[in-house]
Amino acid sequence: MTIAVIYGSSRPRGNTELLAERAVEGMHVERFYLKDARILPAEDKRHTDSGFSKVEDDYSILIQHILMCDTIIFATPIYWYGMSGLMKNFIDRWSQTLRDPQFPDFKKRMSEKIYVIAAGGDMPRVKGLPLIQQFAYIFGFLGMRFDGYILGEGNKPGDIVHDKEAIFAADQLNETLKR
Amino acid sequence: MTIAVIYGSSRPRGNTELLAERAVEGMHVERFYLKDARILPAEDKRHTDSGFSKVEDDYSILIQHILMCDTIIFATPIYWYGMSGLMKNFIDRWSQTLRDPQFPDFKKRMSEKIYVIAAGGDMPRVKGLPLIQQFAYIFGFLGMRFDGYILGEGNKPGDIVHDKEAIFAADQLNETLKR
Amino acid sequence: MTIAVIYGSSRPRGNTELLAERAVEGMHVERFYLKDARILPAEDKRHTDSGFSKVEDDYSILIQHILMCDTIIFATPIYWYGMSGLMKNFIDRWSQTLRDPQFPDFKKRMSEKIYVIAAGGDMPRVKGLPLIQQFAYIFGFLGMRFDGYILGEGNKPGDIVHDKEAIFAADQLNETLKR
Amino acid sequence: MTIAVIYGSSRPRGNTELLAERAVEGMHVERFYLKDARILPAEDKRHTDSGFSKVEDDYSILIQHILMCDTIIFATPIYWYGMSGLMKNFIDRWSQTLRDPQFPDFKKRMSEKIYVIAAGGDMPRVKGLPLIQQFAYIFGFLGMRFDGYILGEGNKPGDIVHDKEAIFAADQLNETLKR
Repeated sequence: MTIAVIYGSSRPRGNTELLAERAVEGMHVERFYLKDARILPAEDKRHTDSGFSKVEDDYSILIQHILMCDTIIFATPIYWYGMSGLMKNFIDRWSQTLRDPQFPDFKKRMSEKIYVIAAGGDMPRVKGLPLIQQFAYIFGFLGMRFDGYILGEGNKPGDIVHDKEAIFAADQLNETLKR
Repeated sequence: MTIAVIYGSSRPRGNTELLAERAVEGMHVERFYLKDARILPAEDKRHTDSGFSKVEDDYSILIQHILMCDTIIFATPIYWYGMSGLMKNFIDRWSQTLRDPQFPDFKKRMSEKIYVIAAGGDMPRVKGLPLIQQFAYIFGFLGMRFDGYILGEGNKPGDIVHDKEAIFAADQLNETLKR
Repeated sequence: MTIAVIYGSSRPRGNTELLAERAVEGMHVERFYLKDARILPAEDKRHTDSGFSKVEDDYSILIQHILMCDTIIFATPIYWYGMSGLMKNFIDRWSQTLRDPQFPDFKKRMSEKIYVIAAGGDMPRVKGLPLIQQFAYIFGFLGMRFDGYILGEGNKPGDIVHDKEAIFAADQLNETLKR
Repeated sequence: MTIAVIYGSSRPRGNTELLAERAVEGMHVERFYLKDARILPAEDKRHTDSGFSKVEDDYSILIQHILMCDTIIFATPIYWYGMSGLMKNFIDRWSQTLRDPQFPDFKKRMSEKIYVIAAGGDMPRVKGLPLIQQFAYIFGFLGMRFDGYILGEGNKPGDIVHDKEAIFAADQLNETLKR
């Protein structure tokens, strides 16, 4: 089993990353740092005669690798009560992939195990709920299961270790993934 | 009174734009098309000693102009049950603006009249609700009022005219803004 | 076509009722005032060997009549950011009806046209959203469509007439129902 | 310190109760079983000249005792993606208490530590989120803090012990309360 962790953070070793790394400790993991990739905003050409045109950036290569994994963890900091713009731009591009003959079974291959890990500072367990609901709709649209999520609290770097529930949930997820 | 309309769409004359233009018809409006601006993803340096560094893109000039308006309309298509990545990247940058001595009264100047207009295809009045809740938290954080929103249904370009409730709401908003 | 309007209000002629009556004006309507019925709280006996026992109250007769209609409007005031306890007790009883041989096709017969009308005082268009999401899950569980909802603003009796969007939506619904 | 646990379940020893009892183990606790009390639905008389009238049931005595505690745990099963009708009827009555000279400092006395514990069967961590958001609005209205919540998964009686995250969270809450 290979696990893809897609990182939407703009800085390394943030609370979200600490949490996600704990969840995948000791496993074979492919890490995708969106901040280090060049991913252009989606251009909505669903209704253009010519359809979507090829985009020259790192998206295709990333999604190709991600689709080879059988578990996907979306790890995003909670910025402004939502996923980061980096991650949203990545997801927006799926509209093209859905119509791309290069990925005939995009929906099916995404229908694997899916988790969301998100950390933030202002009451994430309450104010992070719209983000979880958004992910639930996204995964529902793709026919994916939504196997679980962890909302962690942390503001300053490293804070997350004090969120015992989140740490426990990460350890639990680690056990689940290892099974 | 000047109204800022911030467009998060990736294509011109989409349903969201039709709806927003109807709401501001006959008024003095400044339009900000994020797709035509160069706005880099936020880099979270809240916890870096040196703090945020100057970013060379179009964000500063945009936010400067927006802050001179006294009503702001966030007009975003609903992509994947949320605002577009373009708009999220724009909002993510506020974390820097909040700490930027160039904008000492960012919070206060944003505390004006605020509206959200969003259109999408898959049951926007139900599945667009997390987006509205996210905006409610965003505006709450900044101490802004949330004066209203319109969720319109439309998939193909122009569809929105068939959403009579959304059209009516846009006309109502037009009257309110003109008062 | 017969329309069932299920009223969850504790007082007559409230804002929710004004709105709902506007939506069904001129049509054949059966009105169910939960406040005038005796409906006991559900007793969860899903896991009891003997199963649910017959309850002596007005619920059975009500649900029988409602199931004979082909459109159902749930009209509840927003009390404490949710449906009224009266309406919740009514819905809680469905757990029994789902298992009641007297109603073999409960799910199927509920799969008709469904609307929600709810009015309240404290920013219902934002703070009423969890209620709409709850109804969406409820209807989803039963395999029902969720054809639409109206959230109206009104505190004092009669206030609702000033909520032009809600009134327009009620008039629109009236047209839709008459088709 | 005294802890009030308000039980909204209709049956004893359900998953919600097991979880809540674990959270308060070894502490001085007052338990309020709403199913064993007679609590009439609220009658909305906010806009009646004569105001609310005295209601002959067990509500007053219950709320009196609850207000003497300094931590309140709302423990409700998730019925139909919301709190039970029993609990909703109890909360609906607060509208009267807010205006009752017998409880001059209702809001203030409710501003204590508040937790929500809820268990249910159909993806409670996603589909229970509207319930948490509703509680957040309720507590916000009263100026109460929202100190935390636990959403547990369990369908058949006793199932909850397999939800390790919920059990851990209950143990954590137990430690927090004991401090």
